[in-house]
Amino acid sequence: MQAFPKEEYEQRMNYTKQKMLEYGTEVLIVSNPSNMFYLTGYNAWSFYVHQVVVVMIDVDQPIWIGREMDAHSAQVTTWLDDNHIIPYPDEFVQSTIRHPMDYVANILSELGQGERKIGLEMDAFYFTAMCYERMLQELPNAEFKNASTLTNWVRVIKSEREIDYMRKAAGIVENAVQAAYDTLDVGVRENDVAAAVYHAQIAGTKDAFGDYTSIVPMLPTSENTASPHLTWSDREYKYGDYLTLEIAGAHRRYHSPIARTMAIGDAPQKVKDLSNVVKEGINETLASIKPGMTAEDVESVWRNQIAKHGVEKDSRLGYSIGCSFPPDWGEHTISLRPGDLSVLQPNMTFHLMPGIWMDDYGVEITESILVTEDGCETLADVSRDLLIKPSSS
Amino acid sequence: MQAFPKEEYEQRMNYTKQKMLEYGTEVLIVSNPSNMFYLTGYNAWSFYVHQVVVVMIDVDQPIWIGREMDAHSAQVTTWLDDNHIIPYPDEFVQSTIRHPMDYVANILSELGQGERKIGLEMDAFYFTAMCYERMLQELPNAEFKNASTLTNWVRVIKSEREIDYMRKAAGIVENAVQAAYDTLDVGVRENDVAAAVYHAQIAGTKDAFGDYTSIVPMLPTSENTASPHLTWSDREYKYGDYLTLEIAGAHRRYHSPIARTMAIGDAPQKVKDLSNVVKEGINETLASIKPGMTAEDVESVWRNQIAKHGVEKDSRLGYSIGCSFPPDWGEHTISLRPGDLSVLQPNMTFHLMPGIWMDDYGVEITESILVTEDGCETLADVSRDLLIKPSSS
Repeated sequence: MQAFPKEEYEQRMNYTKQKMLEYGTEVLIVSNPSNMFYLTGYNAWSFYVHQVVVVMIDVDQPIWIGREMDAHSAQVTTWLDDNHIIPYPDEFVQSTIRHPMDYVANILSELGQGERKIGLEMDAFYFTAMCYERMLQELPNAEFKNASTLTNWVRVIKSEREIDYMRKAAGIVENAVQAAYDTLDVGVRENDVAAAVYHAQIAGTKDAFGDYTSIVPMLPTSENTASPHLTWSDREYKYGDYLTLEIAGAHRRYHSPIARTMAIGDAPQKVKDLSNVVKEGINETLASIKPGMTAEDVESVWRNQIAKHGVEKDSRLGYSIGCSFPPDWGEHTISLRPGDLSVLQPNMTFHLMPGIWMDDYGVEITESILVTEDGCETLADVSRDLLIKPSSS
Repeated sequence: MQAFPKEEYEQRMNYTKQKMLEYGTEVLIVSNPSNMFYLTGYNAWSFYVHQVVVVMIDVDQPIWIGREMDAHSAQVTTWLDDNHIIPYPDEFVQSTIRHPMDYVANILSELGQGERKIGLEMDAFYFTAMCYERMLQELPNAEFKNASTLTNWVRVIKSEREIDYMRKAAGIVENAVQAAYDTLDVGVRENDVAAAVYHAQIAGTKDAFGDYTSIVPMLPTSENTASPHLTWSDREYKYGDYLTLEIAGAHRRYHSPIARTMAIGDAPQKVKDLSNVVKEGINETLASIKPGMTAEDVESVWRNQIAKHGVEKDSRLGYSIGCSFPPDWGEHTISLRPGDLSVLQPNMTFHLMPGIWMDDYGVEITESILVTEDGCETLADVSRDLLIKPSSS
């Protein structure tokens, strides 16, 4: 069930340890499920309880520490030897008396790691304030450092196998966009479209099963398109309704997100106009991207292009993507926005996210892209037009 | 789009403020999306960026502070007046320079709340170590208290409207179990069953749309049933394979989880035997539950019953449920396990979770239940037998 050969994990470990040295860190405690997966392959829906992967600078394999009933999942999905998988008893789960980080701290002490320079993912999902407080209390002689995105930065350039998974995810998302389009009609409910999207996302393609995506489908209708992160209700579509559909395909935790704007029968002129501005802007941006540009350079191409039409976008133009777990498919490294000086390199992957939200409507037409040796390519192949579905009534 | 009338929110606020007084807290900072939803109705997939609801003991309405592009969602889904919705600029998102909690701290200072007794959800999902560190730094004269589950405890007894939503969610999960059963066959892939489950979960019923569930379907096959939190792959079912399916139905964020064990054609004798033990145990437990019992009393009924067959279960027997957001549908209040002295009361709801995991197989047959005036009832109506699907080949 492992997603990568052992050699690829060993290479990841090596890069991670290089980063640890750069950060002055001898021990790294990884709580972010995406980073746990990246380093070990661990893949189960158990991140609602505290669990960690510990990397020690002078030990080949990391150790996994998690809930007893999840140790089997670690055996099945990781490349770790059994003696690197350490379960904690169920009485530590959601208790006000015992905390899993006390258990982790004890293990570190037993392994002689308790007084070292320890990196913590201070702002990672699921590494709570209480986790931090317990570590401070239990390991008073450790020197803690912030390593929130240390592993995330190791992830930023993708291997051929990772890119293959993302291409498969893109094949899945093409089907899911089509399923939404096919289902859309007057009288259909938002949740019926969401159900069709889900089915396509998980059924996948002939050569790639669909994995769950780290964000659920978002498909606000008409005036609600001003609220991009609404999910769905039982609202029935009317003739002239439009929607922004933002979804991903996922395969073995690797994501290819995409957004398209659709309408039923017809769309208001303002939506057609803004769609054209966004489409032209994304086309210009895609044509300009190449290795060596900075993240803010990319954003400025877009910014200048839409400014010709008097349009502005305050939010970032996109972000690095790859493997991920809920609640986000962003990698939390590079953002395409002013001030981000990261230099684009071949085999980086981004969700180029030109969504524009006005006071009472919005348009999203986005692409997942791969930076190549001399430019970029989109992972999926879906028309970037405003997609108008003929109404059956 | 609001899920409850204003009066119900006002009542929730009143109970929450009572709890705040009990905890000696003048200001409560709520980060847990389930608690944010419960207090305000806020409902969008935006919890991958920092956002909070602030309750002040002497102010009627809470305030919502979140990302600029999500303020619209707050206007649409909450009962709050517009001047209680405060957006922060996009440059605070996933930045190493600016942190959203600095912004929150500034607002608190401006509102004269910066030197009060402030409750923090120290161990809640998404309230990271960094959030805590920023609060300590920015509000040096505040007195911080741990209020991790303060609001969760307010949620523990359900209103009639909440119970209605959970019953609707149970209707949805009945369909989803059936969809899994109907799809199961030799040669079918795990992800095909997952796709069918998803479709049923979201399509919902005639009178209730399906909402996304806080945990994705989990359906490990045969020897992998020892690993309850595995999701799915493209593994093809063979004759004699068995699986534990743990899923929920959800309606307007309220959940009714259920698990069933299924087999294709036939199941190994050990699985049949353990299924009978679990079924008998859950039947006995359901027959015994009534208000006034403690959580540990309930567990002991189960424990004694399965001990007659020489079976033990280390993990908790269940937990309180209600509204929730990913990654967990548990409420993080009452656990049915030794040492939990919580007294059962009418209109509490639990996921009674008698899963048993051996070294190389497992069985799960579970129920979502409502405690009534004189006993309990299950929310869904699904046979508790080991469900053997005749194989087509």
